[in-house]
Amino acid sequence: MRRGGVLPEVELAYETWGEARGDNHVVIFTGLSPSAHAASSTRDPDPGWWENMVGPGKPIDSDVFHVICFNSLGSCFGSTGAASFNPETGRRWGVDFPTLSIEDIAQATHEALRELGITQLHAIVGPSMGGMTALAYCLMFPGTVRHLVSISSALAAEPHAIALRSLQRELIRSDPAWKGGRYAFEEQPVAGMRLARKLGMTTYRSAQEWRERFGRARIQPDPGESLPGDPAFPLRFEVEGYLQSRADRFVGAFDANCYQYLSQAMDLFDAAEHGVDAERGHPGLALESALVIGVETDALFPVHQQEALAGVLRKSGAKTEFERLPSLQGHDAFLVDMERFVPVIGGFMKKLAK
Amino acid sequence: MRRGGVLPEVELAYETWGEARGDNHVVIFTGLSPSAHAASSTRDPDPGWWENMVGPGKPIDSDVFHVICFNSLGSCFGSTGAASFNPETGRRWGVDFPTLSIEDIAQATHEALRELGITQLHAIVGPSMGGMTALAYCLMFPGTVRHLVSISSALAAEPHAIALRSLQRELIRSDPAWKGGRYAFEEQPVAGMRLARKLGMTTYRSAQEWRERFGRARIQPDPGESLPGDPAFPLRFEVEGYLQSRADRFVGAFDANCYQYLSQAMDLFDAAEHGVDAERGHPGLALESALVIGVETDALFPVHQQEALAGVLRKSGAKTEFERLPSLQGHDAFLVDMERFVPVIGGFMKKLAK
Repeated sequence: MRRGGVLPEVELAYETWGEARGDNHVVIFTGLSPSAHAASSTRDPDPGWWENMVGPGKPIDSDVFHVICFNSLGSCFGSTGAASFNPETGRRWGVDFPTLSIEDIAQATHEALRELGITQLHAIVGPSMGGMTALAYCLMFPGTVRHLVSISSALAAEPHAIALRSLQRELIRSDPAWKGGRYAFEEQPVAGMRLARKLGMTTYRSAQEWRERFGRARIQPDPGESLPGDPAFPLRFEVEGYLQSRADRFVGAFDANCYQYLSQAMDLFDAAEHGVDAERGHPGLALESALVIGVETDALFPVHQQEALAGVLRKSGAKTEFERLPSLQGHDAFLVDMERFVPVIGGFMKKLAK
Repeated sequence: MRRGGVLPEVELAYETWGEARGDNHVVIFTGLSPSAHAASSTRDPDPGWWENMVGPGKPIDSDVFHVICFNSLGSCFGSTGAASFNPETGRRWGVDFPTLSIEDIAQATHEALRELGITQLHAIVGPSMGGMTALAYCLMFPGTVRHLVSISSALAAEPHAIALRSLQRELIRSDPAWKGGRYAFEEQPVAGMRLARKLGMTTYRSAQEWRERFGRARIQPDPGESLPGDPAFPLRFEVEGYLQSRADRFVGAFDANCYQYLSQAMDLFDAAEHGVDAERGHPGLALESALVIGVETDALFPVHQQEALAGVLRKSGAKTEFERLPSLQGHDAFLVDMERFVPVIGGFMKKLAK
């Protein structure tokens, strides 16, 4: 592992769409929390987290490309992470898992691809944390990737984003059920996870979206019922109810320690450690082309960060397009605002198909 | 109380600067957490929370004005609030304190001023929550105030700000030491207060300020020492250490229940309940003039809210100046960026002195 420690064995879960034909491989790196199930397929017909983006005739077209999405190293949807069993102890890793870096995710994926006989990638697509992993991959394995699509990501996190993620991690650890990280897997610190998710939601969406969507609308309890939450300080506004329901949906779906390792990895990542210079770029990057997308309402990865990334890629010799989208949904827009994202990503991928 | 319940007796703590000469009274309403000690005086030489703004020769000039700052009803620095003793039970109010509204703070202050023989105010100055209280006062007692200075405030909170304050309150209540609000006063839920303060700081300051101030600078532990915080997820970045020190400074200085009542009051306030209309203003407001200040980097009370407030005051017949300041310090700028705030407030107050 980049920051010390060894994983004696690693499994990575992945899904694929389309067929391999020569060098038509497109790898998708995910954000912090999704699984490898980006889209439905015959083997798993449930809708995926990027259902409108991946599949036959979709922007990342499985009629054209062999699309592979990995569950990140360190996550808990089939890939090795803190919730996995350490073969040397027979117990789950928990907080004995080594410090995870974005580069470790890229490295593990590279080795998994090699196992699959894939050494050259036509394109990598990565939103959010996945954009960091995609960039790390290009920097660590130059010449093995031709095209990059980076969405709502950055060369490195800024201190405001670090502060917000650091606080999310602390909210989980402040739950007594976290037990210093040694909770039983079946007894997750759900109260802390719920709070962390609520804070996360305030950073993933935008003030503008919530102004239009919720305004100051109040929760209307059923007749005879009182407002939900604490009697003295109840949930009164619809935005509070929304956060509550989003938090409820999240807990039980993610391991608390895995969340912390992945969150910390985002803070630690810095393209400068790979010799990327904001002024001069990186002459060894060897990308043919890149599409960089940013969203004007993104408070977590503000759009000037994508602009800076696009500048670096351009100076590194990649033919780079930069799209600045006015989506309302902030950092989450790539999951929601299909009207804007589908044509931009679809248009770029179509050019790569030729 | 506006939303039900009765306080059988009320005390309000206040401090004054300068001497009453006719109708030269200037009242300062505070933000959520300050005391009445806005500035030093012969009776209390400690620097106040607005030391550079209040005093002889200062922008709010005590050589000219009789300046009065109240500790808000509901707070815990001498005024009646949840930490006060309920005379009917002999115990602290705690969560049995009635729901607090911004209007209750204005009402209590109005009655305190009447006790002091003051019925006409030359001006009211209010930053943040204090701006809401100042506006409520003008709306509830029209014709008793001539001039208003409203800083980084709003006609009503927006859902993003509500979400962030709601979460801060929940962080306090999630601390087992909160005990359903029935903690002993000497045993505050300090862990929850610390987390709430950290979250507060991410909303009071700006991403831009932290980018320039901290960047990605790392905490450098002393030789032989490890990083502070959790072994697996330590505090690594200076911005995390800054939040920690600000949180440590806050706890012990504020009662947890008082914090929740005041925070909730900010969410509840809505000038529309007093007949204020964004398009038409409020014909009964009867203010002669107003200064409204907003800060471009304020994410909690975004500057378009001050612009809207200025528009309403103008339509209500007040000669209104709107100042949009490019301060880096976000919502807290009025406490920090004296270079910009002193001339703007000083200039307006000088005109009132004539």
